[in-house]
Amino acid sequence: MVTIIKIGGNIIDAPEKLTTFLEAFRAVEGDKILVHGGGKVATDIGLKLGIPPQYVDGRRITDAATLELVTMVYGGLINKKIVAQLQASGCNAIGLTGADGNIIHADKRPVKEVDYGYVGDVTESGVNGALLHTLLQNDIIPVIAPLTHDGIGNMLNTNADTIARELAKALAKLMQVKLIYCFEKDGVLNKDGNVIPTITESDLDLLIAEGVVSAGMIPKLHNATSAVKAGVTEVVIGNAKYLQALISGKSGTMIK
Amino acid sequence: MVTIIKIGGNIIDAPEKLTTFLEAFRAVEGDKILVHGGGKVATDIGLKLGIPPQYVDGRRITDAATLELVTMVYGGLINKKIVAQLQASGCNAIGLTGADGNIIHADKRPVKEVDYGYVGDVTESGVNGALLHTLLQNDIIPVIAPLTHDGIGNMLNTNADTIARELAKALAKLMQVKLIYCFEKDGVLNKDGNVIPTITESDLDLLIAEGVVSAGMIPKLHNATSAVKAGVTEVVIGNAKYLQALISGKSGTMIK
Repeated sequence: MVTIIKIGGNIIDAPEKLTTFLEAFRAVEGDKILVHGGGKVATDIGLKLGIPPQYVDGRRITDAATLELVTMVYGGLINKKIVAQLQASGCNAIGLTGADGNIIHADKRPVKEVDYGYVGDVTESGVNGALLHTLLQNDIIPVIAPLTHDGIGNMLNTNADTIARELAKALAKLMQVKLIYCFEKDGVLNKDGNVIPTITESDLDLLIAEGVVSAGMIPKLHNATSAVKAGVTEVVIGNAKYLQALISGKSGTMIK
Repeated sequence: MVTIIKIGGNIIDAPEKLTTFLEAFRAVEGDKILVHGGGKVATDIGLKLGIPPQYVDGRRITDAATLELVTMVYGGLINKKIVAQLQASGCNAIGLTGADGNIIHADKRPVKEVDYGYVGDVTESGVNGALLHTLLQNDIIPVIAPLTHDGIGNMLNTNADTIARELAKALAKLMQVKLIYCFEKDGVLNKDGNVIPTITESDLDLLIAEGVVSAGMIPKLHNATSAVKAGVTEVVIGNAKYLQALISGKSGTMIK
């Protein structure tokens, strides 16, 4: 059994929250993998370097300068800060991007209405589950940055939720997998603002149709149902503050 | 037998030279490890971010901002660029800093006449040779950035020549090791500008006394003799252009 946990900018940008989270992560029993997103720090450094966020039709794009920015900030600054902190608590972490050990191969997203630039979509069988499995067997804990590579020499920017899902799907072929998406809320909320404890795929269509699920939540839930369909044992969406409770099923929204 | 090859800024800062070198590196037979230095790119990005190089008594120091800079540039930008290029040529590279898998543990240099800041001196038995050996046995090629960690949560800036030497010494306990230092010249030059083919430890004292060896060359040669004394089979200093000849002993200066 491996627990894959994804954290985003709301934790990465707050040093105290990150430290608290990493303490909880360290205490998670059994094999585990951490997938982290980006954060405001990339935007802040980008602005100083004259690389402002680029949007086309409201969609964020990754031009060549932005790719260099995220490669250094996600793959260097954020990833190594997390690894050094985990090492300090006796957690033998190894920081990786998708290029390292060819862990995650992706294709540059084809240009249709929008040219997203250097954005990678993980290819079918693009995840090197065997190497991740070998690392876990050696008690090494992978910490994955939201970057992939195209196999022809380029890094690519890839959404951390997607990476977590694809890792979960690939590892589900080798072992039991629990996938935990941490975000700023306590779970998927209903109209009254209460956490919905369980969502099935058929519920999801209804929730979307009724407008209960917000636009930003829809891709997360689709990631979750796609993982479940691919054999991932459990997917939970909730607040990183309650990591242990998310893992034991006592907090957050479980997707079945 | 493992070949450890160190490259510096003169190659990292020149994309065509780097590509040529990586092609030659790919072709090196048997187990191999690449150690890379920094390069002008860190200084250039630092200047844009308002982090100019800091010197005290002519010695470069690493303050907190510089540490973040080199963590992202060495550990992210340069390291992943190299890894992605090697992956493109079918070389299964994995990019690592000393924090990753606890590969290289260092102590923050004690403050004496100069406070070097976040600079790490590799500790006795600070290199995790076992993990590097496991990676090599799995046909994975480590690409090491010039960064270590102190085991209490901090990354540290560490000279790439030193890292190459320490890796060589640690692996010499497990396997035969060849250590190749690449730099901008064809080897250690005598007064006539010709390459000295072989230098022994006793030669070295004489060469220093006679002023044949330049100031910048002395630490490189001390690194080399220290490695030989620790059981490294061969150390060669020469030009990356002739990588294959350096490995086969037909170019560069061999230290015995």
